[in-house]
Amino acid sequence: MANIRDVANHAGVSVSSVSNVLNGRTNQMRPETLARIRQSMRDLNYLPNRVAQQLKTGQARMIGLLVPSIVNPSFAMLTREVDRVAKANQYRVLLGNTYRQEDEEKAFLEDMFAHGVKGVIVVATAMDRPHFANAARHGMVMVNYDSLMSVHAPDGNPPFDSVSMDNVEAGRLAAEHLIERGCRQLVFVTEATQLPSRLHKIEGFYSAVNRHGLQESAQVIEGKAGEAYGDAEMTELGRSLAAKVLEQSPRPDGIVAINDAMGIGLMAGLRSAGIRIPQDMSVIGIDNIPLADLVQPPMSSVMPPLADMVTMMVDRLLTRIENPDLTPEEFLFVPKLISRQSVIEKGEP
Amino acid sequence: MANIRDVANHAGVSVSSVSNVLNGRTNQMRPETLARIRQSMRDLNYLPNRVAQQLKTGQARMIGLLVPSIVNPSFAMLTREVDRVAKANQYRVLLGNTYRQEDEEKAFLEDMFAHGVKGVIVVATAMDRPHFANAARHGMVMVNYDSLMSVHAPDGNPPFDSVSMDNVEAGRLAAEHLIERGCRQLVFVTEATQLPSRLHKIEGFYSAVNRHGLQESAQVIEGKAGEAYGDAEMTELGRSLAAKVLEQSPRPDGIVAINDAMGIGLMAGLRSAGIRIPQDMSVIGIDNIPLADLVQPPMSSVMPPLADMVTMMVDRLLTRIENPDLTPEEFLFVPKLISRQSVIEKGEP
Repeated sequence: MANIRDVANHAGVSVSSVSNVLNGRTNQMRPETLARIRQSMRDLNYLPNRVAQQLKTGQARMIGLLVPSIVNPSFAMLTREVDRVAKANQYRVLLGNTYRQEDEEKAFLEDMFAHGVKGVIVVATAMDRPHFANAARHGMVMVNYDSLMSVHAPDGNPPFDSVSMDNVEAGRLAAEHLIERGCRQLVFVTEATQLPSRLHKIEGFYSAVNRHGLQESAQVIEGKAGEAYGDAEMTELGRSLAAKVLEQSPRPDGIVAINDAMGIGLMAGLRSAGIRIPQDMSVIGIDNIPLADLVQPPMSSVMPPLADMVTMMVDRLLTRIENPDLTPEEFLFVPKLISRQSVIEKGEP
Repeated sequence: MANIRDVANHAGVSVSSVSNVLNGRTNQMRPETLARIRQSMRDLNYLPNRVAQQLKTGQARMIGLLVPSIVNPSFAMLTREVDRVAKANQYRVLLGNTYRQEDEEKAFLEDMFAHGVKGVIVVATAMDRPHFANAARHGMVMVNYDSLMSVHAPDGNPPFDSVSMDNVEAGRLAAEHLIERGCRQLVFVTEATQLPSRLHKIEGFYSAVNRHGLQESAQVIEGKAGEAYGDAEMTELGRSLAAKVLEQSPRPDGIVAINDAMGIGLMAGLRSAGIRIPQDMSVIGIDNIPLADLVQPPMSSVMPPLADMVTMMVDRLLTRIENPDLTPEEFLFVPKLISRQSVIEKGEP
C-alpha cells in the first residue's frame, strides 16, 4: 500500500507538505499544491494510518455514543443525526447499547478509554451514577442528552455539559393541548424508572393541570419495562398499561404518554379493548418519531428540535476535547406541538 | 492511572503474566492466577491501552457496521444484535449510515482502514460496487448482509461471505399466504433500486403466482425513495404508492410489500383513500419489525431468524480476520410466516 513518501513523490512535493495536509495545517499552502496532494492520495489509494497518528496525538477521531437501545426509534433518529454531524467533523461514531445497565455503561466507558476515545455522548440515563463522574475525573469529556442533572457541583456549575429538550415545557404543552380540546380527566402514562427527564415532563404536566384546577382528577400511571432491552420494550409496556388506564373511575378522557413509542403501544392496547381514539379517549405522545404519523389515527406529539440539539452536542464535545477547562453548561431547547388526529377536536361529541 | 507493572505488583505476578492475560494467552495459566490478575485489574481500575496494543498487533477490537440508515427499524434491530454479539467477543461497533451512496460507503471504508479496523459488516447495499472489491484487495474482511451476490469469482466462489434470509423463499411465502387466503389480483410493491435481495423477493413472488396460474393479473409496482435518507423514507414511499395501487384495474386484492416499513406506509395511504384492510385489500410485509404488530390492523409479515444470522456474521468476520484464506461462503437462512390481521381470513366476505 502507498505510504506518505509515495504520495510526496507522486505529487512532487516534500513529505512534510503531505504531513501538513494530513494534520490539517493547510492555511499556508497554495490551493493548487493542496489539490495536487489530495489528487495523489486518491490516485494512489493512500490511507493515512490514523492508528499511528492517534498514538502520537493520544486521540482517536472517534466519539462514543452511549444509548439505552438503538431499537427505540427516538434514539435511532438521534444516532443518525450524531453520525451526520460527527462525519462533517471527520469523526466516526462508536456505538454502545447499554440498556441503562450500570455494568454495560461501565464496560462501554472503559472500552472508550482503551480505544483512545476522548469524548462520549451519553443519552438518556442517570448521569449521577458514579462511573460517569469517575470517567470524567480520568479525562473523558461527556455531553449528556436528555438527562438534565438535578444536582450541581459546589461551585454551582453542572458537572457535565447537558443538552436537553425543555422537558417541563414538553409535558406542559401536551397537557395544555388536551385541556384546550376539552379533556378533563387527565392521565400521564410513564415508565417507572425516575429519570430527571421523566420527572420534568411530569412536572410540566401537573403545572398545566393545576393551572386549570384539574389536579383532583389528574394522575400518573406507571409500569416497569422489561430490563433486557430498556426502551425497546416501551411499546409493549404502553400496550399493557392500557388495562390500568381503563381501571380508572371516572374513566380518563385525555392521556399524555411519556414518549411516542409508549403512546403507540397504548393506542394499540386501548383499541384492542374497544376504545375509539380520539372519540372515547385522546392520546398525545412526546418525541415526534416518524411513526407517530403512520399509526391510525396519526398521533399528536411534542417535537424536540433534534438537528439543532445534536449539532450543539457534537460541537460542545469537540470544543471541550480541545479545551477541557471550559465550564460545563446546560442547554435547553424549546419543543413544539405537532397536532394530528389522536386528540379530539374541540366540541366533538 | 495504573499501568501493567502496577497490576503485576498488586497480583504478585510477572509483567509478562499480565501481558499474557491482556493478549488472551491464558490456556497455560492456572485458573487462580488468572482470577488474581483479573481482580487486580479491577481493584486498580486498570485500563489496558488498546491503542498501543493495536499498533503492535495492527488490529483494533472494533468492527465496522455499514448500514443504509439506522432509522430503518430493520437495521436498528440488526444493529442491536450486532452490538450484542460483538460485545460478547470483546469487540465494539463503529457505525456508519451510508444511505447506499457510493461516496459515503467509500469514505466509511477508508476510515475503517485508518482506524485499524479489520472487518466490516456491509448491510443491504450493492456489494458489486468496485470500492468493496478494492477494500477486500487491501485486506479488509467483509461479510455481506442481505445482498447475496449474483456474480461469483472465476473459481466459482462468492467474493465475500454472505449471510442472508432466503429472499426467494420470503417472497414466495408472502405470496402463497395471500393466494391461500383467496387473493387473486396480486401486486408486489417495491423500491425501484435493483438490489439482489429485492430481485430475489420478486422472483419468489412470481414463483408462487405462476404455480397458481395467476401471472396474467400479477404485477410489480415500484417507486423511487428519496436519496437523502434511503430506507428512512421507505414508509413515505409506501404511503405515496397507495395511489399507484389504486389506479390498477381490476383493483388488486392482495399486496406484498418489499419490507414492513413500506407495508406500514402503504396501509396508511390506502386507509386515507378509504380502503378497508383486510376487507377490501390484504397486505403482507417482510422483516417482521416490532411495529408490524402495533399498527392497525396488525400486519402479517415474513420473519428472518435475526439472532442466528447475526451470530453467523460476527463469527465469520472474526474467523476470517484470523484466517484470511478461508474460502468465502454464502449462508441462507429460512424465514417464517407470521400471520396477523392484515390478510383476509379464508372465506371472509
